[in-house]
Amino acid sequence: MSIYEVRLSRIKEWMKQENVGVTLVTSPPNVFYLTGFDCHPHERFMALCIQASGETALFVPTLERDAAQKAGCTNIVTVGDTDDPMAKLRTVIGDGPYGKLAVEKEHMTVARYEQLQTVFGEEKAVAAEELLLNMRLQKDAAEVAIMKKAAEIADRAIEAGIAAIAIGKTEQELVAVVESTMMALGASGPSFSTTVLAGEKSALPHGTPGSRAIQQGDFVLFDLGAVYEGYCSDITRTVVVGEPTAQQREIYEAVLAANLASIAATKPGRQAKEIDSAARDVITAAGYGEYFNHRVGHGLGIEIHEFPSVHGNNEHELVTGMVFTIEPGIYLSDVGGVRIEDDVVVTEDGVEVLTSYPKALQVISV
Amino acid sequence: MSIYEVRLSRIKEWMKQENVGVTLVTSPPNVFYLTGFDCHPHERFMALCIQASGETALFVPTLERDAAQKAGCTNIVTVGDTDDPMAKLRTVIGDGPYGKLAVEKEHMTVARYEQLQTVFGEEKAVAAEELLLNMRLQKDAAEVAIMKKAAEIADRAIEAGIAAIAIGKTEQELVAVVESTMMALGASGPSFSTTVLAGEKSALPHGTPGSRAIQQGDFVLFDLGAVYEGYCSDITRTVVVGEPTAQQREIYEAVLAANLASIAATKPGRQAKEIDSAARDVITAAGYGEYFNHRVGHGLGIEIHEFPSVHGNNEHELVTGMVFTIEPGIYLSDVGGVRIEDDVVVTEDGVEVLTSYPKALQVISV
Repeated sequence: MSIYEVRLSRIKEWMKQENVGVTLVTSPPNVFYLTGFDCHPHERFMALCIQASGETALFVPTLERDAAQKAGCTNIVTVGDTDDPMAKLRTVIGDGPYGKLAVEKEHMTVARYEQLQTVFGEEKAVAAEELLLNMRLQKDAAEVAIMKKAAEIADRAIEAGIAAIAIGKTEQELVAVVESTMMALGASGPSFSTTVLAGEKSALPHGTPGSRAIQQGDFVLFDLGAVYEGYCSDITRTVVVGEPTAQQREIYEAVLAANLASIAATKPGRQAKEIDSAARDVITAAGYGEYFNHRVGHGLGIEIHEFPSVHGNNEHELVTGMVFTIEPGIYLSDVGGVRIEDDVVVTEDGVEVLTSYPKALQVISV
Repeated sequence: MSIYEVRLSRIKEWMKQENVGVTLVTSPPNVFYLTGFDCHPHERFMALCIQASGETALFVPTLERDAAQKAGCTNIVTVGDTDDPMAKLRTVIGDGPYGKLAVEKEHMTVARYEQLQTVFGEEKAVAAEELLLNMRLQKDAAEVAIMKKAAEIADRAIEAGIAAIAIGKTEQELVAVVESTMMALGASGPSFSTTVLAGEKSALPHGTPGSRAIQQGDFVLFDLGAVYEGYCSDITRTVVVGEPTAQQREIYEAVLAANLASIAATKPGRQAKEIDSAARDVITAAGYGEYFNHRVGHGLGIEIHEFPSVHGNNEHELVTGMVFTIEPGIYLSDVGGVRIEDDVVVTEDGVEVLTSYPKALQVISV
C-alpha cells in the first residue's frame, strides 16, 4: 500500500466506528496529506470525497486537472467555474441516503456548509478535524527527513541574511536576500511572510518589514521559514549591531536560557504546558515575565501552525514524532525585542533539534 | 469623518435595515478595509464587533495589541492564547438579548460559528458578505491610486524577471529575481506565490516553479503581483526564448487579440460575462476554444481574488471603480501555454489599464 492508501484506510476505519457515510476533506493541507496533491484553489471547490463504501473521488477546479494527474491522483472530478459543485457531488455520491457527513469544521466555511446542507440535510455534521490532526501530529521518518531539509534551508537563509546586514540597509532588502537564498536552495516558497525587524521594531512579535534602515545599536530579528516538498520550517534568530548594552545582553541571555530550558524539558510523556513553563519560568525569574506575551511554540508540518499548541494550559502529552517550535521572546517597546526559535522533533530519547544555526549572542561589527 | 468612519456608518445603516443587532467582521481583508489594521492572525480570534447601538470593539490576539494601536485603532480588546474568545466577547456585548447576528459566511469556519451559537443561539446568522463585497467592489480614487502603484511595481518586477532569462537558469532563480525586485521597490510582499513556468510547464495554469531550466524554444510564463499599502496587483506575460515556431506565434497572437478584445469591451453598463465572451470568441474563432479552460478574470483589490468574477455566467453589470484582471490563455500540453494578463479599472469613459508592461510577442535572444 502507498502511504496515501495507508492514511485513507485509517480514515475509513474511523468512518465505520463513527457511523459516517461521507467524509469531505477540503483543506489544502489535508488534501495534500491524503493524496500528495498540493493545491490552493482559493475560493474554488476542492474536496477529497471518501465514501463508507470505500470509494474516493477528488474534486478539483478544471484548471487543476493536469496538475492533479501529475501528482498521481486518480478518480478526478473536475469542477468548472460555471459548474454547481453540489450538482457535481451528487453525480458521484448518488441520491442518498448518505448517512452522517463529516467535514473539517475548522476549515469549512459557513457558506459551503449551508450548501452541503441542501444535499445532506440539516443534521449537524461530524468534525473530521481531530482525526486528521492526530494523524498528522506524529510525523513518520520520511516526513522528519523532509522537515530536516526544510530546516537546513532556513539555517542557510538566515546565515545569508545575517551576513548581508549593513548600516543603512533596509529590513526589506534583507528579506529579499533571505527569500532569494531559500528559493535558490530549492524551497518552493517561504512558509510565511519573511520577517526582518530592526531596532524598536523588533519588539513587535508580528511586525511587518519595511524601509526601516539598520542602525548602530539595533537588534535585528529574523523570523523565517522555507517550504520544502510541502513541509515547513520556522526559525528565529536575533543579532545585535555593534557592541550591545548591558540590558540588550541581559534580555538576550534570558531568552537563550529559556530556549535551552524548553528544549531540555522536551521528551515523550511530558505535557505541552511543561515545555511552555520551562521557558516562562526562566524569563520570569530574570524579571521579564510580563514581556513574554505569547505561547512558547506551535506544532509544525505541512502547515506553519499545527497541533500541538505549546501553551501554558495544554495538557496534551508529547509523543515521538511530534514536531513543534520553541520560541521564547522578550519584547521591550523602547529597547527592542529578542526571540530565539528552533524546530524540534520528539524522539524516543527525548528531542532532536532540526534547526542548527548558532544561538550564542552574535555581535555584528559594521 | 475618516474613511473608516464612513465605511462603518454604511454598515450601521445596513444593520438597521436588516434588523441586525451585532455584526462580527472576522476576515483580515475586511478588518483592514474597516480599520486600516492589516493583520493575519492565523487560527487566533480577531473580530471587529459592531453593535446596533453604534459601539465598536476590535478583538485582537494579545501579541497584536501594539500593532493595532500603531494602526490607529481604538477600543481594542486583547485575547490571549489561553483566553476563551466567547467569554471576552460577552464582556463587551453583555448578556443580551442581542438581536440578529451577522457574520461573513464565506470566511467564518463552521467551528467558530458553532462557538458563536453558544452565545447567540441557533438561529441562522445573516450573511454580511454581500454588503462588504459590494462596498469593496467600487474602489475610490485613493484606492485606485494605490493599485496603480502596485501595478507599476509588478510591471518593473516582470521587466527584471524577463531581463534575467538565460539558458540554464531555473524557474526558481527567476522567481527570486522577481520577488527581490518587488521588495526593493517597496512591496510588502508578493500578492500570491510568484509563478515562473518554462517550456511544457507553461501549460499548467497554476503550476509550481521548480528546478526546470530555461531551454531554447521555451515559452516562459511569468504570473506575479505585488502587495502595496494593502492592495494587490496581478500581471502575466509570456515570452519565447529563441525564434518561435509558427504554432507558438499563432497561439500567442490569438491570446493577445483576446486580451485586447476584452479590454475594448470593458465599460460601464456591460455585463461581466460579455468581457469573458469577448476574449473567448476570439480564441474559439482561432480554433483553440477548448484550450482556454478558465474564466477570463477576477476582481482585485485588498485580496487577489475579489468580486466580480469575470466568467461566462456572471450578469453583474460593470460600474465605475471596479477593478479586475483580464487574463485569457491557451494551454497545449505538448507545446506549452500562453497567458497575457492585465489589471483594469472601469472608468466613466470605459476602461483604464493599470499594468503597462508591453504585450507584443517578445523573442528573447540568448
